[in-house]
Amino acid sequence: MSAEEVHVVFTPSGRRGRFRAGTSVLDAARGLGVDIDAVCGGRAICGRCQVEVSEGEHAKLGIDSRADHLAPAGPGELAYAREHGMREGRRLACTACLVGDVVVDVPPESQVHRQVVRKEAEVRQIELDPVVRLYYVEVREPALERPSGDLRRLREALEREWGLVGLEVDPEALRALPGALREGRWGVTVAVHDGTAITAVWPGYHDQALGIAFDVGSTTVAGHLCDLSSGEVLASAGAMNPQIRFGEDLMSRVSYVMLNPGSQAELTKVVRECLRKLVGELVAAAGARRTDVLEVTVVGNPIMHHLLLGIDPTPLGVAPFALATDEAVRLRARELELKVHPGARVYALPLIAGHVGADTAGVILAEGPHLSDELTLLVDVGTNAEIVLGNRDRLLAASSPTGPAFEGAQISGGQRAAPGAIERVRIDRETLEPRFRVIGTEAWSDEPAFEGTLVTGICGSGIIEAIAEMFLAGIVTPAGVIDGSLASRTPRIVRQERTFGYVLSGAQPRIVITQHDVRAIQLAKGALYAGCRLLMDRLGVERVDRIRLAGAFGSHIDPFHALVLGLVPDCDLDRVSAAGNAAGTGARIALLNRAARTEIEEVVRRVEKVETAVEPRFQEHFIGAMGIPHATDPFERLAAVVPFPRRTEAGAGAGREGRRRSRA
Amino acid sequence: MSAEEVHVVFTPSGRRGRFRAGTSVLDAARGLGVDIDAVCGGRAICGRCQVEVSEGEHAKLGIDSRADHLAPAGPGELAYAREHGMREGRRLACTACLVGDVVVDVPPESQVHRQVVRKEAEVRQIELDPVVRLYYVEVREPALERPSGDLRRLREALEREWGLVGLEVDPEALRALPGALREGRWGVTVAVHDGTAITAVWPGYHDQALGIAFDVGSTTVAGHLCDLSSGEVLASAGAMNPQIRFGEDLMSRVSYVMLNPGSQAELTKVVRECLRKLVGELVAAAGARRTDVLEVTVVGNPIMHHLLLGIDPTPLGVAPFALATDEAVRLRARELELKVHPGARVYALPLIAGHVGADTAGVILAEGPHLSDELTLLVDVGTNAEIVLGNRDRLLAASSPTGPAFEGAQISGGQRAAPGAIERVRIDRETLEPRFRVIGTEAWSDEPAFEGTLVTGICGSGIIEAIAEMFLAGIVTPAGVIDGSLASRTPRIVRQERTFGYVLSGAQPRIVITQHDVRAIQLAKGALYAGCRLLMDRLGVERVDRIRLAGAFGSHIDPFHALVLGLVPDCDLDRVSAAGNAAGTGARIALLNRAARTEIEEVVRRVEKVETAVEPRFQEHFIGAMGIPHATDPFERLAAVVPFPRRTEAGAGAGREGRRRSRA
Repeated sequence: MSAEEVHVVFTPSGRRGRFRAGTSVLDAARGLGVDIDAVCGGRAICGRCQVEVSEGEHAKLGIDSRADHLAPAGPGELAYAREHGMREGRRLACTACLVGDVVVDVPPESQVHRQVVRKEAEVRQIELDPVVRLYYVEVREPALERPSGDLRRLREALEREWGLVGLEVDPEALRALPGALREGRWGVTVAVHDGTAITAVWPGYHDQALGIAFDVGSTTVAGHLCDLSSGEVLASAGAMNPQIRFGEDLMSRVSYVMLNPGSQAELTKVVRECLRKLVGELVAAAGARRTDVLEVTVVGNPIMHHLLLGIDPTPLGVAPFALATDEAVRLRARELELKVHPGARVYALPLIAGHVGADTAGVILAEGPHLSDELTLLVDVGTNAEIVLGNRDRLLAASSPTGPAFEGAQISGGQRAAPGAIERVRIDRETLEPRFRVIGTEAWSDEPAFEGTLVTGICGSGIIEAIAEMFLAGIVTPAGVIDGSLASRTPRIVRQERTFGYVLSGAQPRIVITQHDVRAIQLAKGALYAGCRLLMDRLGVERVDRIRLAGAFGSHIDPFHALVLGLVPDCDLDRVSAAGNAAGTGARIALLNRAARTEIEEVVRRVEKVETAVEPRFQEHFIGAMGIPHATDPFERLAAVVPFPRRTEAGAGAGREGRRRSRA
Repeated sequence: MSAEEVHVVFTPSGRRGRFRAGTSVLDAARGLGVDIDAVCGGRAICGRCQVEVSEGEHAKLGIDSRADHLAPAGPGELAYAREHGMREGRRLACTACLVGDVVVDVPPESQVHRQVVRKEAEVRQIELDPVVRLYYVEVREPALERPSGDLRRLREALEREWGLVGLEVDPEALRALPGALREGRWGVTVAVHDGTAITAVWPGYHDQALGIAFDVGSTTVAGHLCDLSSGEVLASAGAMNPQIRFGEDLMSRVSYVMLNPGSQAELTKVVRECLRKLVGELVAAAGARRTDVLEVTVVGNPIMHHLLLGIDPTPLGVAPFALATDEAVRLRARELELKVHPGARVYALPLIAGHVGADTAGVILAEGPHLSDELTLLVDVGTNAEIVLGNRDRLLAASSPTGPAFEGAQISGGQRAAPGAIERVRIDRETLEPRFRVIGTEAWSDEPAFEGTLVTGICGSGIIEAIAEMFLAGIVTPAGVIDGSLASRTPRIVRQERTFGYVLSGAQPRIVITQHDVRAIQLAKGALYAGCRLLMDRLGVERVDRIRLAGAFGSHIDPFHALVLGLVPDCDLDRVSAAGNAAGTGARIALLNRAARTEIEEVVRRVEKVETAVEPRFQEHFIGAMGIPHATDPFERLAAVVPFPRRTEAGAGAGREGRRRSRA
């Protein structure tokens, strides 16, 4: 150990160097490019730069590392510890000075680029790389002898203390500056967006920087309020999309706009009001200030995206379904009339094609198929299913017109997923008796606790399970026919004019799965499967490594039943799983990780868009996919784990010609 | 002449090169970097690229140049000529193809960077270099097979046809894009701001790009509507600054804001309303559309600048008079609530110091002292005088607290410059009889046509002339005393308690120049002169080469009388002149010339700011400058052309001790 120089090693980065004794740990870290957080710039105020000395590391690293190789805490550090409390052995890197060789550990919470923990093991972890960072600076006071604007002196301080130069300044931040400087006695905290623009200024030290990730769906709008410096979700809130009064589904809203000139502004207004209301709920729930919300990200399908931004969506209603833009859109929150910080920015993720929107970009970002060697199939099921297939080499995307059956529409007892809706169904293979569960109750229908539960209808996941179970119990044939001959075995099979139905619930309202319901689901799942196969054809593959079902519906359906019904191509059952609200997660990643924006913009550019409507093979795949699970594909991987009903074709009805299954 | 290649020379640039026969003149010009205007991109629509063949040039240039060395006009060019008319010998460069050696003359109106003619010979000419340019493009139609956003296809067209890449897009332009493309059948005109951002889109071909230069004074606000592609002023309009109801002068408005918390928003609101109203008047007067206004520039003193932008001006009301910013401010017109094109931008010129604002930056830009070897003194006289001194080597600036006397305040018969105010005064050296002229009349008071003219008071330029004439007639002594002994020679000298007055107009209201008036003007002009001298001291010079008097007041005072009174340091009389509304001209230059913005930002950065309040020599200069023209400076250059009254000191009054004139 030299008298003048000490040796320091940082863990976990492993970076090491020699510094003059007396150098602060923070300066040493910066000199070595070690990632340590700090807002206050070495003033022992923010406490973000806490480090520990690893006493046990010396043997391995050849360094005699001891806690007393840092100079004792000075008054600033002691005051911070007194006021905020500090864990035993922790030191503030900004004030702790090196006096001897030492190994310094930077705990995850002291790193700027730390990871946000996501529960699921399989999913992509989010690395923090905040789009907005806060910087506390002390600005030179103005002097008569040296006239200079407040902004210029702020720039000098930002350059001197943080090396920040050439920043743009939002007019709102400029307006706030003179007051903040004087109220803060020339100490202010500024928010810097994307390393390029000053968007907010507060008097004195300020350490709250929040963001909101919005997922604007055609039915529901959801928002997540996040702490930009920890990645933590502070509050989540959702609301029905108020545009529903202009049309249940997207296309009816576009028609409304087409038929009522000038109404586009109305649709834009109500969805912005909805976002504004959610902002209020989110900050209230978290006990936060709206003016601390500095960044907003948005995902949504193309039509919602355009309407939110005030762009005419009518070209999306007719072929060739041209987007106004497929690029990421950056604007100010005030341009969307969001009541957050007046300097806050909005980032709307890029879009892929006329029916494949920023929501799908969000799903890609959350699931990261482009980062993996595995061939992943991502399916986001709605009125239109958005499908992405590929891996790090190639990514393909398409949308498939599944129609509204999966959302419970066009189904006899169908309803939206809401309390009272049947969502889970099991049918005994022998007795053909059903058990089910409804949303809002934990009990199954054959349990005492179920007594008195109101059953109002059946939602999308319920109808999927019902038909899949009917198939497994032999009630529905592979061609999709409800077998009337079973009426002799159970009174649940009832004749309905020329076809049969299956009584799932006899109470009022009576829930019967009709032949028409089965046909509606066959059409929907046929379209979905055909879209997936089309992408597989394009990629020249016969199987995929894993399937992720995204979106509200995708998260609710049981992968097993989805596979039995043949919604998606055959796959190992344990590699088919729900992705949850992946679009919303994508919006959250774009909120917390600056590089993710560049990443998704690049990925979206190279996604190969497949237009199902002009692909001749789509119809061919669609017809084969009408069978259960499929007319010609034996679904061998599924069959290996599930006993398909061994039966001869029986009963009345159409669709027989579609049956080409090789298994007897 | 080669069979394949032809030789072309462009005048006046002199650029020359060889091109394949069949090349269009426009392509050849672009290849050689010759400046030819074009909006339509070679479609014979805009007619801006008209050129002539110089048949007589061959001898000098060694080229056999003939009109028929261009291929005959095709259908597009003929159609243009039929529809719009074209001068004999003119051709459209975009469609005229080279078939033989030729000398092509590009007339001024076909150059992008042509000069805007300014009448005054001495002043700086404005070169057009528009901040906003229009580009007509034909965009590929969307296709189902190749999904791509409208914006992406627009970008492709802008790159292909104009080489424009990496443009930002204003959200308002994005909103307009889908409709414009479809209405224009995939042909649109876009406005590109500063070569970096698409700010507007129109269906089809559009050729109007307008801008407004605003000069926001504390008393009046003036706007000039300009054609950005010709530089022509289409309309000018002015209005009283409605903030006057919150205080006549700037400081009383700042006091109002200090005393009435929240009132700043009110002052901001009314001045923005004033600008909005002027926009309406300007476009109405020119028969133009507001949505064709794509660019706005603003000059104003620091307080007006801050209030317009919504920035708290109160720090400007107390030492050290700190500006919120001294940088140029760029924002969107909609952020100032101006009803012009929603994508229009605003550029507020940079400020220099707490009392030296963007108006002074405008004066510098208009007068260009930094471009000259001559030592120029620029003086903008108001309640505060802003003074700039220097040349290409150094520039200094200061403000001097002249007070409101020059505006007619604190003067017994004083009033603002308005109809009825005496603005010109002559006094017969022998009879001591006055003649005067009032605003709104061409006749002098001793002419028959003057009969019945109402005289309401005397304005600033009138009082300057009156006192200067009184001095030249011997009525006022060099010390500023009205000589009571002359009462015996003329009844116009009247006793007023212990001092005397001079009756300028005996009609009602009686206008008398009192001793108090003379003192008020002495104080004001003393401050102005002292400020000028201070800058001369700093620069180490004893004389300046020329003096330019700017601003409404500066333009109205007669340089001769200003010099006689010693408002400014001694100078050759023919080198003292009025600069007109130089601040407004500066705003117009910043509107029409992109490079002028960079230029003024750089110049302002290197201006040396002199704070008169902390300069000990200011008081010294001020005392000496109380004399007329000056207590110690003989004003030799002025004296060489004007017979100063040869007299001995007489009459009562103070100020005698200040008299050190060497001339007897």
